[in-house]
Formats: sequence, C-alpha cells, structure tokens
Amino acid sequence: MNKNLSLNVGIYGSTGRVGRVLIENLQNDKEVNISCLYAIDEFKFTVPEDIKKTDSLETLFDLSDVVIDFTAPSGTEALLRYALTKPKPLIVGTTGLNSEQLALLKQAAQSMPILYSTNMSLGIAVLNKLVELASEKLRDFDIEIVEQHHRFKKDAPSGTALTLGEHAAKARELEFSKVRVSGRDGIIGQRDKDEIAVMSLRGGDIVGRHTVGFYNDGEFIELHHTATSRDTFAKGAIHAAKWIVNQPNKQYAISDCLGLQG
Amino acid sequence: MNKNLSLNVGIYGSTGRVGRVLIENLQNDKEVNISCLYAIDEFKFTVPEDIKKTDSLETLFDLSDVVIDFTAPSGTEALLRYALTKPKPLIVGTTGLNSEQLALLKQAAQSMPILYSTNMSLGIAVLNKLVELASEKLRDFDIEIVEQHHRFKKDAPSGTALTLGEHAAKARELEFSKVRVSGRDGIIGQRDKDEIAVMSLRGGDIVGRHTVGFYNDGEFIELHHTATSRDTFAKGAIHAAKWIVNQPNKQYAISDCLGLQG
Amino acid sequence: MNKNLSLNVGIYGSTGRVGRVLIENLQNDKEVNISCLYAIDEFKFTVPEDIKKTDSLETLFDLSDVVIDFTAPSGTEALLRYALTKPKPLIVGTTGLNSEQLALLKQAAQSMPILYSTNMSLGIAVLNKLVELASEKLRDFDIEIVEQHHRFKKDAPSGTALTLGEHAAKARELEFSKVRVSGRDGIIGQRDKDEIAVMSLRGGDIVGRHTVGFYNDGEFIELHHTATSRDTFAKGAIHAAKWIVNQPNKQYAISDCLGLQG
Amino acid sequence: MNKNLSLNVGIYGSTGRVGRVLIENLQNDKEVNISCLYAIDEFKFTVPEDIKKTDSLETLFDLSDVVIDFTAPSGTEALLRYALTKPKPLIVGTTGLNSEQLALLKQAAQSMPILYSTNMSLGIAVLNKLVELASEKLRDFDIEIVEQHHRFKKDAPSGTALTLGEHAAKARELEFSKVRVSGRDGIIGQRDKDEIAVMSLRGGDIVGRHTVGFYNDGEFIELHHTATSRDTFAKGAIHAAKWIVNQPNKQYAISDCLGLQG
Repeated sequence: MNKNLSLNVGIYGSTGRVGRVLIENLQNDKEVNISCLYAIDEFKFTVPEDIKKTDSLETLFDLSDVVIDFTAPSGTEALLRYALTKPKPLIVGTTGLNSEQLALLKQAAQSMPILYSTNMSLGIAVLNKLVELASEKLRDFDIEIVEQHHRFKKDAPSGTALTLGEHAAKARELEFSKVRVSGRDGIIGQRDKDEIAVMSLRGGDIVGRHTVGFYNDGEFIELHHTATSRDTFAKGAIHAAKWIVNQPNKQYAISDCLGLQG
Repeated sequence: MNKNLSLNVGIYGSTGRVGRVLIENLQNDKEVNISCLYAIDEFKFTVPEDIKKTDSLETLFDLSDVVIDFTAPSGTEALLRYALTKPKPLIVGTTGLNSEQLALLKQAAQSMPILYSTNMSLGIAVLNKLVELASEKLRDFDIEIVEQHHRFKKDAPSGTALTLGEHAAKARELEFSKVRVSGRDGIIGQRDKDEIAVMSLRGGDIVGRHTVGFYNDGEFIELHHTATSRDTFAKGAIHAAKWIVNQPNKQYAISDCLGLQG
Repeated sequence: MNKNLSLNVGIYGSTGRVGRVLIENLQNDKEVNISCLYAIDEFKFTVPEDIKKTDSLETLFDLSDVVIDFTAPSGTEALLRYALTKPKPLIVGTTGLNSEQLALLKQAAQSMPILYSTNMSLGIAVLNKLVELASEKLRDFDIEIVEQHHRFKKDAPSGTALTLGEHAAKARELEFSKVRVSGRDGIIGQRDKDEIAVMSLRGGDIVGRHTVGFYNDGEFIELHHTATSRDTFAKGAIHAAKWIVNQPNKQYAISDCLGLQG
Repeated sequence: MNKNLSLNVGIYGSTGRVGRVLIENLQNDKEVNISCLYAIDEFKFTVPEDIKKTDSLETLFDLSDVVIDFTAPSGTEALLRYALTKPKPLIVGTTGLNSEQLALLKQAAQSMPILYSTNMSLGIAVLNKLVELASEKLRDFDIEIVEQHHRFKKDAPSGTALTLGEHAAKARELEFSKVRVSGRDGIIGQRDKDEIAVMSLRGGDIVGRHTVGFYNDGEFIELHHTATSRDTFAKGAIHAAKWIVNQPNKQYAISDCLGLQG
C-alpha cells in the first residue's frame, strides 16, 4: 500500500511508554502515516531513524492531519493554546486535567474537533453501553460489580468501575453514590433491591479486569472486560484519529467514534 | 393487595414440570391472578385447592385476559384453532411446531396479539442484543462461543448458542453457517479473522451456560449467561403476559416485550 | 441389582427439604437401601408408600447399618443419647450444635464411628485441600477470595469462605483473622503481601459460589466452586455413610472419607 | 544488600525475548547475581553495561554456580557436551529436544543436577498436581478442559492442556488418548462417563488460559490458570536455580523444586 496517500498522524510529546506503544501500533497500521514526533524531552526508548522528530509546534501542525496527545496537563494546556491559533483535529488522552484546562479544551472544541477521553479502550466504551442496556432491560436483576488490578494500585475502586456503576445506575434513574456498597461483613441483612456493590480485588500484575453482573431468580448475566496490556490506549487513539478528521468542530468522547450515543 | 383488580392469566394444559413452576411464580406475583387451569390429563403435581380447573376451552377463554401455553405441538394447534373463533392474547412457548403450525400461528396473529418464543428467558433475549451490538462495534475482535449443558443433553451445540452465533455473525454481514467451527485438533494454522468457534461442554447437571467472547490485542470482552433453574421460562412468560394485553394484533417475540428491536 | 444385599441406611427425622432430597438420592443409589424413616413430625412432602416409617428409635437402630441425621440441635442431642446405649455408625449434618452438644458428640464417638460436618459437599472438602496446597507451594502469590450467595442471605462472608480463608492462611502460618479484609474504598495504599480479601457478592437465587485466587507477576490461578443445588449435602452424606460402616470408633469429618488428611 | 554473597547465575545464549526477561528478573532479585552472559549471536536488546558478556563456555562455567539455558536444541546439545567435561547445576528450558538430545541430558544428569522442563511456570506445575488430586478424589465428577491462546497459535490443543488432561486421566487409571474429545457437533448422544473434552479457543493476544472443570449433580469445581506474560518462564527458572544448587545429581522437573512429587 502507498502510505503517501494515508492519514498523517502527529504525536505530541510522547517520549515514554505510551509513546512507544503508539509508534509501534501506527507503524503496523496501513491506513496511517506518522508525520512527525514533537518532543522537547529525550525519548526513553529507541525511535526508528526514519521517523521525523521536531521541537516546533508549527512543524507538527503543518505536517499532520490529526495530532495525538498523551502527555501531562501542562503539556495539553500548551497544545490547546497553540491549536486555538491554528485549529487541527486533536485526540487528547491526558489524565488529570483541572477544571480550567477542561474549560480551555471545551472552548477549543468550538474551532476544531477534539476527542477527549481518559480511557481510550474501545472495549470499555462498548461495555459501558452494554451495561446501560442490560440495566434498563433487566430491571428486576440485582447488580454487582467486581474489579481487579495489580498489587500496587493505591486507590479503590478503579475509575473505570465507578463509571460502569454510573451507567448501570443511570439506566434505572438511581444516584450511584447513594446505592454504592464497597464491602460486606457481619450481619448485613438481606440485600437491598437497589444497592450496587463495587468490590475491589488486588494482586499480581493484573492490568485491569472488570465484571458487571446482573442476577435474578433462575438466571444471571455477567459482562466482563479484561485489559491484557496498555496497547488498548494506543489502539483506541488511532481508531479515534481516523474517525475525527471527518467530524465537525465539537468535543467528542471515545464512545462517539463507535457511534454508541443516542 | 386486591388480586381481584389484577390481570387474569389462564394456563393451558401445563400438567407437568413447567406448569408447576408457572403456578408457583404466578402465585407469588402480586400483579397477576390465576384465572383457571385448563387440563385434560391429570396433573403430575399437587395443584393448590383454591385454583379453578376446567376441561372447557370456553371457560378458560371467558375467565382469562391472557392465556399461557407450554404444551406440545398438537396442543398448541388445538389452542390456535379455538382462538381463531374467539381471539385472546396468547403466550406460546411450545417447542417443535412444524411449518403448518407456524403458519397457523402467523395467521392467528392477525386477529390477536401472540407472543411466540421457544426460549422465554429475558436474560438470553437481552444477551442476543448485547452480542449484536458488541459484534458490530468491535469489528476487529475475534469471536468465540462456549456453551455448557448437563451430561444428558444429546445434541450440540445448543439452539441458544447457535442463535447467539447468528446474532454475532449478522452484525458483521457474515453467514454464520459458513464461519462456524465446532472443534480444533492438530495443525489448524492461524485463526481465520471471521471464524466463530462454538465449543460445547457437557457435564454434571448444568442447566445452561453460554459465553460469547470478543478478543483483540490488549483487551477482551466476555458476555456470559447462566440459567440456574428452569424458572426463567415461567418468569419470561409472565413478564410477556403482562405486556401483551395492551398490544395490537401481531406476532411478537420475547425480545419485543423488552423493547429490544430496532 | 439385589438391594437386599446392600447397605441399610436409616434417616433420622428429616421431614423437610433435606429429607426429600436424601430419600430421592438414596432411592437412585444401587448400593444402598433405605431401612426406615424415623419421624415424630409430619412429613412436608409425599413419602413413597413402600418406605417404612417409625417413631421408635429402637426400630430405626435395629433396621439400620448406619443412621443419617440432618435435624436440629435438640434432635441430634436425643439421637446421641440413645446411641450411647446402642452404638451405631452415624452421619451428623445438623448445624448449630452448642459446646455441650459438641462434647456429647465427641464422647459418643469413643463408642462408635461418627462423621460430623456442617457442610457435606465433597467439592468444598476437596477445594479446602487444594487451597491449602496452592497456598503453601505458591508463597509469592497474592490471595483473594470472592463468594456469592442469593439476595436473602443475611450474613457475610459465608462460613465456607471463612473456612477456605483459614486453610489458605494456615498453609503460610498466618492467623486468618489478622489478615482478612472485607472491603476496599478510597486511598488504600498498595496491597499488603499477607492480606487476604474476602469479598461477598449477593444477588438472585445463587446457591453458592466461591473463588480463591492466587495472583503473581506473569500468572494467576483461580480455584472455583459452584453449588447448583442443595443436593450436594445429600450426596456427601450418602458417600460418607458407605465409608463409615467400616471405620473404627472415632469422630470424623467429610474430608476423612475422601482420604484428604495428612 | 551485598550481592557478592548471593548465588551466581550464568545465562547461556539468551539473546532474544526470554533473555531480556531473564535479565530483568534476575536484576530485581536480591538473592541472585548475574555472573555473566554467554553469547555468540548479537543481543536483540540493550544489555546493561555492567553485566559481563563472554563467548567462552569456560568463563561462563568458572563464574557461575548454576547456568540457565533457554536456547535451541543444538545450543543445548553443545552445553550438555561441555558440561559433561565440567559438571555444573543446570536449568534447561529449551523446547524441541529430540530423543538423542534427551538421552544426552539424562546421561549428563548422572554427573550433575539438571532441571529440565519445557514449561517453567510454577502455577502450571501446581495446577497439574491439583488436577490430579481433584480427579482422584472426585471420581463421579465429569472432567472438561478449555484452553485459549492468541490467534496466531497454529496447533491445538496446547501442550499444557494435554499435560493437564494426562494428569486428570492418570488419576483415574484412564488412558488419556482414548478418552480425549476435541469437538462436539450434531447428535452426539449423552456424555460418556470417562470422556474428557479438550476444547481450544483462539483469539486476540491471549498468552495462555487453561481451565479444568469437574462437574457433578449439585456442584462443580473449576481450576483455572492464566498466564499474563512470558515472565512466568523466567520466574520459574530463577526459582529452580536457587533450589537446584543444593540437590544431588539427578534429572528433575519444575514440580520437584516445589516438592510436589509423591
């Protein structure tokens, strides 16, 4: 295939682990071309010789049809400020943006299409939708959630588990924070119809496992997702990059590019 | 609660196991009332004294707002012929109808609402929909299906597994019969993108377990259903009975009463 | 097969649900014969005509090679007092015995073989052993336990889950009560090497599911048990009855008849 | 910690993926020290500067207390021939040895302790033992095996699944090759008591999942193993290296160093 005809994707400042996975996945994808890598820091891995590097945002934007950003909040802020002067479709996967940075992103999305998601996994995006549907259609079924991560994860439950719980609760017009349970011990009495337990397991090097179960008399359904590596972020971002270049100016989420809304 | 104000449900000829479960579930449901049991055969279980029994179809139809039928093909045929003379909302769960009986049912559904499904499980109906959605949205994911039943089941795979496979295939414009695989042994070569294995496990007294998995680099999703008893049929039929009394004349499936179509 | 040559099993006072399941399972077992049913209360189910009933302990003991008891603590106490006057191999599955009743049972076991277990499931007995072995051999693996029961269960975790945890802890010379965790929420910090979470899920009509997981970098093992019905108690008791008639006077547990000790 | 006092481990010819993982794991282990890397080929990854490299077997053997070998059959053959002249504890994980090479290994093990296993996973070694125990103790339970690997795996079932099946069969005095089933389709009739299905799933980038299930009326047990990365081989080899230095001359398997035999 002639890669010259394909989509030119620029990578903004990914000198670490995610950057390496992004580059590998982009190189293996016949429909896209890496236009250039923007970086000020040194790369923490060996970048193939034939990929152009730059420390000029102007060059990055000139050469790219779309720019992917997995950096830090300050990096994303700088990117958005520049993009306001020179709009370009953006994929932003940076976590930890504060409210001002989120407002800046929202404002920028008036002048260009921007897809922003802190979890770019396509599987999780679909799972959220499936959970919503099952929760709505199977009203009599009790809902329970289990998530598992590696032994070093310091908080519980995972953000993804909470989001899954919110989708489950919303479909029944419940406020998730009011029905969530995080442990059971002693004489707890019989289960409340609306409660949703979110139980957190920890151990080994588990990247991420999430199960949302729906239990009724006579039958149950369990919807399960396992992340086997952090590749999912890169794959989701690339999928999104191909989609966003044809979209009108607006802020999107990963679920939009799967056509899951509405 | 005043059961006099509730829906009057008649049971047509269920003198066996399903009949017993139906009666137990109807008695525990505050929104419905058992109008009467129609039976020619003797009941294979003790029927509560206070439930009316009859061997007259006229009585059954006069006393009931809706009639539930889990009998044999000839029984269903007789029911449909009578109903053509005296239309009434019907729930039909009889398996093994031949093409003429199916045509008769279709014809009858022009004069009354009839819901016909050979698997009344609400969970399976929802699972079919979830599988369709996941298959469509996660095109790059490999699909594999595993089903398990008790040691006495004589055929494989289960009808439910085949239906799940058809939903998965249809969402990708594949013809299921052409992509289905039922075993792997020896040098099989790398997996074909489109193939869908349906593997059948047998053992113990398993009522029914079905898993549809979607596998990609970096992540996978598994959608799982377990039937813990045959109660699911009764529960689904009662759910359907409440719904069908307000529907226009037409033939429906269990998925319709969950609003899953379209 | 000539049932006259088989083992004569007497049932002590099981007029309820367990009694019915015991009788069904004994009738289907070619190696045993139901000698008679002892009962003072009325049976809550239809007992087959051809099975002898009695309200005399003397008759029960005269006709039986072994007696199975799933009653209440006071019933078991009466049985043990009589057995002290007329020793007979006993299978006791009664729950809730107090310390004096347990002492009485221990004393009686000096004059006859008595197998006493509050969970007669063979699967759980084996699982306890597997957990012990895995815990000992896989010292670096993190242990987590998940149990699930129906929505009406009022206490958590299940007794079975606690016993599994004790086997896991004992194999590492840990005191289970000091390492057990029953919920995780908020900033919990990284997992302590020795902690063992026991998470309780509730929902639907789940009879009982238990999973003990062992997680390390690069791999994990999960040992899972599901009870699909209460038949397991009857099956375990019958298995034990066949075994105990050839044992010396002593108190045994269900694991003994599987040869799992030592 | 003073690594000078720890075990000196030499790596024989691992210039590829396994070599990299071995080095990383050895560096993170406080009880061992990498004595040197023997290699003729170039390393396919960046080797830390401070690790000694050599192309002399004499140097490798002089500096090491134990040597780990994950190479090709010809490499292992050369290693064994040299070791016969200068005995040293060896860990051999090379796959595909032919019968002469296996005989050579057996002969060499008379002069030095050699642990040889083509799957160094500690979890799988333990699982084999658990399967054996469960199969023996739960004779009435039906056995079924499911394995899953990535879409590129060309053969089925996996060697590990076959070994698990052999352990299950052996415990019941069955010949595995006579009871193995690899697919079910059509009118198969009710399950034969002794048959053991081994079903192979393929998809995504699954490193390896194996489940051995035991199913009876009323209950079932499932023993499951997941490999999350190829680290397991390195971890098992290092565990074995620490153990073998104190063993008498003999050929061992990975299960021996876990004390699982007998």
